[in-house]
Amino acid sequence: MPKSFIQRLHEVTAARDSLLCLNLDPELRLLPSSIQRSPSPVWKFIQEILDATLPYLSAVKLNLAFYEVLGNKGWRIIERVLAYLPKSVIAIADGKRNDIGNTARLYAEAYFSTFSFDAITVNPLLGSDSVAPFLERPDRGTFILTLTSNPSAKDFQERRFGKRRLCDEIATKAVQWNTNHNVGLVVGATHAKDVRRLRRLAPELPFLIPGIGAQGGDLESAVRSSITVDGDGTLIAIGRAILYANSTSSFAEHAAREAEHFRNRINQAISRSTGTKEAY
Amino acid sequence: MPKSFIQRLHEVTAARDSLLCLNLDPELRLLPSSIQRSPSPVWKFIQEILDATLPYLSAVKLNLAFYEVLGNKGWRIIERVLAYLPKSVIAIADGKRNDIGNTARLYAEAYFSTFSFDAITVNPLLGSDSVAPFLERPDRGTFILTLTSNPSAKDFQERRFGKRRLCDEIATKAVQWNTNHNVGLVVGATHAKDVRRLRRLAPELPFLIPGIGAQGGDLESAVRSSITVDGDGTLIAIGRAILYANSTSSFAEHAAREAEHFRNRINQAISRSTGTKEAY
Repeated sequence: MPKSFIQRLHEVTAARDSLLCLNLDPELRLLPSSIQRSPSPVWKFIQEILDATLPYLSAVKLNLAFYEVLGNKGWRIIERVLAYLPKSVIAIADGKRNDIGNTARLYAEAYFSTFSFDAITVNPLLGSDSVAPFLERPDRGTFILTLTSNPSAKDFQERRFGKRRLCDEIATKAVQWNTNHNVGLVVGATHAKDVRRLRRLAPELPFLIPGIGAQGGDLESAVRSSITVDGDGTLIAIGRAILYANSTSSFAEHAAREAEHFRNRINQAISRSTGTKEAY
Repeated sequence: MPKSFIQRLHEVTAARDSLLCLNLDPELRLLPSSIQRSPSPVWKFIQEILDATLPYLSAVKLNLAFYEVLGNKGWRIIERVLAYLPKSVIAIADGKRNDIGNTARLYAEAYFSTFSFDAITVNPLLGSDSVAPFLERPDRGTFILTLTSNPSAKDFQERRFGKRRLCDEIATKAVQWNTNHNVGLVVGATHAKDVRRLRRLAPELPFLIPGIGAQGGDLESAVRSSITVDGDGTLIAIGRAILYANSTSSFAEHAAREAEHFRNRINQAISRSTGTKEAY
């Protein structure tokens, strides 16, 4: 019986003493000019960033759109990233995939077998039977898109069915889907009160929290509103503020410093919130 | 000013006298044994199927999951399919992609530029600003996932906000999003009354209708409930019943016969419904 994804995530974040997830989302136009001249600039950039920042991370998240736009080449880079990552770091395919049952099964196979990610993000609009194929392997995690941080989240996710919002209905379903201990939620960080409400609805599910930094969410409030009673259960996903902290040839050192800084700020927020963690 | 997608779709279906869209969803285990021995069985299968069935089609739809599961190789096959297709046939990337604004822009670039599909399917859960980047090019179509044919469509899509179902809210938004005349709806064929209701909400949007055949939807009722007042405006997407009509080495001829048969049955249903088309 393999270890469940939630158990593994718990152990990884404890061992690495970090709730930081790095968004590995390479944008050609933002790469340092020293890198642009390399024959494989995207891969070279990712490799240097990983070498420098891995000590401060528990997870990396690859938003697949950044690779798909590169065509064939993008998929070869994904293969190289997965081969390069140590097993002790969680690799998340942020693809927001979704389809009806048989086809969802192919997506699960694509990202858990063809490409061996540890977890994937899934859009739940099509309902339980569209999510089920992702949940079969206890050791692979599925983060359900629940509430995003864009203004148009109000169009559908924040609308009410009777007294309850769609995002709350999604969170409640996700709790039911967690029979293999491998389900998490993607919860945007923009409104702490929403994060707290979803945490109450899904007290044991890990949260993946994007929207800090570039999208304006507040780090401390995101951490405090999303951690579980154990003082973990959340991954704070940060990209640009680390990747593009500096555009000179010493970009990787700057990225490491930012990653360390975010790791520490997250741990300090936990410490202030629970009193159980050493402050740095 | 390029022709709008809806205008082009109208002209293509009229010129080719077909509302049939072939789902090009190759499954290794279902390929005829004569093909299995080829060095590139998937591509060889697709090529023979296209050669045989193109006269009866207006569109092909590639569900990307079937290619993603093949890894790198899958993306090279997609390139070959797109290069092989005549310009007079609409190519749809059925990827149900979705993300917040800046990332949605990368998906649009990936499927309208890196890979030059004519249209894409998009999951609208994240709302207007997540869909907007797909709509910028009038000549490229975006089919919005509105109501799917799986049992779990009841989990969210069929739930009511006050008096209105989520799928109806999505259809109404899609009509508002159609300022560039390039928006369509994906509407599963399982319940004719739902198709009719959505047609009333979105009288001018093209419908892409999966779920005929393998999923048990009724062809005639799907056509009659989805066509616009002009007697078109719908694409009936059929896969397995054509692709795997026969598993001998003459599979392509059988596929052609099935495609012709479906094309004719669709046209007959229109003819009975409107009296304006010749019956075959």
